[in-house]
Amino acid sequence: MSSEDKDEMVVTPWEVRGKVDYERLIREFGTQPLTEELLKRLESFTGELHLQLRRELFFSHRDLDTVLDLYEKGTKFVLYTGRGPSGPVHIGHLVPWIFTKHLQDHFDTRLYFQMTDDEKFLIDDENKLEDMTRYGFENALDLIALGFKPENTFIIYDVQDIDLLYDIALEVAKRITYSTARATFGFQDSTNLGWVFWPAVQAVPCFIHKKLTGENVPALIPAAIDQDPYWRITRDIAQKLGYHKPAQIHNRFLPGLGIGGKMSASEPETCIFTTDTPEVVKRKVWNAFTGGKGTATEQRKTGADPTICTIFQYFLYLFEQDDKKLAEREKRCRSGEILCGECKKELPERINTFLAEHQKKREKARDTLEKFHIKR
Amino acid sequence: MSSEDKDEMVVTPWEVRGKVDYERLIREFGTQPLTEELLKRLESFTGELHLQLRRELFFSHRDLDTVLDLYEKGTKFVLYTGRGPSGPVHIGHLVPWIFTKHLQDHFDTRLYFQMTDDEKFLIDDENKLEDMTRYGFENALDLIALGFKPENTFIIYDVQDIDLLYDIALEVAKRITYSTARATFGFQDSTNLGWVFWPAVQAVPCFIHKKLTGENVPALIPAAIDQDPYWRITRDIAQKLGYHKPAQIHNRFLPGLGIGGKMSASEPETCIFTTDTPEVVKRKVWNAFTGGKGTATEQRKTGADPTICTIFQYFLYLFEQDDKKLAEREKRCRSGEILCGECKKELPERINTFLAEHQKKREKARDTLEKFHIKR
Repeated sequence: MSSEDKDEMVVTPWEVRGKVDYERLIREFGTQPLTEELLKRLESFTGELHLQLRRELFFSHRDLDTVLDLYEKGTKFVLYTGRGPSGPVHIGHLVPWIFTKHLQDHFDTRLYFQMTDDEKFLIDDENKLEDMTRYGFENALDLIALGFKPENTFIIYDVQDIDLLYDIALEVAKRITYSTARATFGFQDSTNLGWVFWPAVQAVPCFIHKKLTGENVPALIPAAIDQDPYWRITRDIAQKLGYHKPAQIHNRFLPGLGIGGKMSASEPETCIFTTDTPEVVKRKVWNAFTGGKGTATEQRKTGADPTICTIFQYFLYLFEQDDKKLAEREKRCRSGEILCGECKKELPERINTFLAEHQKKREKARDTLEKFHIKR
Repeated sequence: MSSEDKDEMVVTPWEVRGKVDYERLIREFGTQPLTEELLKRLESFTGELHLQLRRELFFSHRDLDTVLDLYEKGTKFVLYTGRGPSGPVHIGHLVPWIFTKHLQDHFDTRLYFQMTDDEKFLIDDENKLEDMTRYGFENALDLIALGFKPENTFIIYDVQDIDLLYDIALEVAKRITYSTARATFGFQDSTNLGWVFWPAVQAVPCFIHKKLTGENVPALIPAAIDQDPYWRITRDIAQKLGYHKPAQIHNRFLPGLGIGGKMSASEPETCIFTTDTPEVVKRKVWNAFTGGKGTATEQRKTGADPTICTIFQYFLYLFEQDDKKLAEREKRCRSGEILCGECKKELPERINTFLAEHQKKREKARDTLEKFHIKR
């Protein structure tokens, strides 16, 4: 593989690699950018604009405007997001969940959260089903720890809750041909039958609210843009089945700590898990890839590059809530006023403060897990 | 389509047409004929050989010998058969069920019976899921009316019981590639995603006994040979999953009453439903295709052909239990001693006697339906 190939952008629901060009994703996926106007409309409902919108971490959408139009006329929406539970949760996973909670709080709306243990089992030969199911319950603790309201939060564990999902999945699956799915997901002859069917299961939470309540409202899906192909085919068949098209709001990927922002579950040193100890966090951040120069002297002179620095991204995404202080940090970095060591010292402190609290809430969540399970 | 094409044998799980050549099916499907020796072994367990074996209505198998070997050494087996509930049950459906009950009675073994409402919904654009599900419960009444033992009979309604089936279906689906399924079932680009997945659901009852009881025993499947492709791929993956390969015993199709033995649910006059009234039965039999000649005079002279007579098949399959009397009827038909009118008068009487009793038991079965539902 040439170095061009290695850098080539690949964004599918199962693989994200290379340098991600978000402008290009909007063009190629055919989504809409989040405009100033749309952000203002959101702000009119939520008061202050959320950090992740101000900083353009959410950058693209489908039909968010339609959902807000309906909301203004009295038709609510439900939120839908999820998690493929193939291992422990890392901080990158929390980012869109934090934003989802913001929407739940301000629009007082129900969240359907899908734990796709079946998917994670199907797409990797090494994965055992019981492990994926177990991770599902463990991962739910991280979600709950963020403060979601139990009365408005409906976690779906695919295997456990398939009895609720299956009839809708059949209705969806009947209306998607193999050729459409192949074109959308790149299925091949070697793809297994479960994986081929699975997009129908992922579609179900878009529609399940009607089955549970009788109310026909759209779903708004905050999720990373790599999941977009699922919603594209779901949108194509939604109206045939008597539902609203699901709307989406797409976020960027939080980069990992590896070279070039690489994050990989198979390289645990490139991501910070919510269960990491303070020492582990310090070590991982210490070894992180930054935008620094070869020597302190050089960096004092020419400054560093925060745009390629993985540590700066962590401040940007979560650990510097104050915009002015973030701008200040960026300026001092570019000017060479601070060196990487300073950020590498400050970030673990903030992460560990956050994690200390999160880990406490996460353990408490074990007692309330069932309150968040989908209500029937 | 030329007339050759119309007569061409097509036997798939979803379509059976043309003149069925059972010898050729054994060769093409790669199954084994039921030999004299194997029939003798069966007889040693059951006493008298069942009518459907004596008359070669069951004619082919896979691994029946292995199942009997295990049985002799103390490893029991379970029976598994099923029904695609897309409409009312006709007498042709009862034939293998009657044989299945014979096996249950003599081997004192558990039956798993799958009602595939999901399949019937997926394979036909016109079919509504709630209708298929409703037919499933209605069709179960016909099964129960045959006298199956509730403690040994476990009816699985796919949609209702998917929570029991899904984890095993995932294990199966993960091990079957799209290309294998395409080669086995002739899937095309236009095949829907549910249909592609469904073979994994049909495989589950082969294996579910272990999940429910902890016992790992083989399943023996009495079913029409058109279902064989399902078991072929299930056999290929059974041992990888730690199960016995499912064994099968294959029956011929009871011909319909139409020309050339055509039976079609879309032409209700070609089959006798278990809920038909005596008058309807008389009319259908009266209009049935026989092996008779153009005139009574000719038939008296040259005799008729019972091998192409649909009415004779009904005596052969079910309504003449006495082998000597059947042989006598055949002889008198061939010699021209009896005319078709005589058989057309006798058969409805026998069918109606059977149905009067069956319909009574069928109505009583409504009260016991839940006793036959899969026990958890």
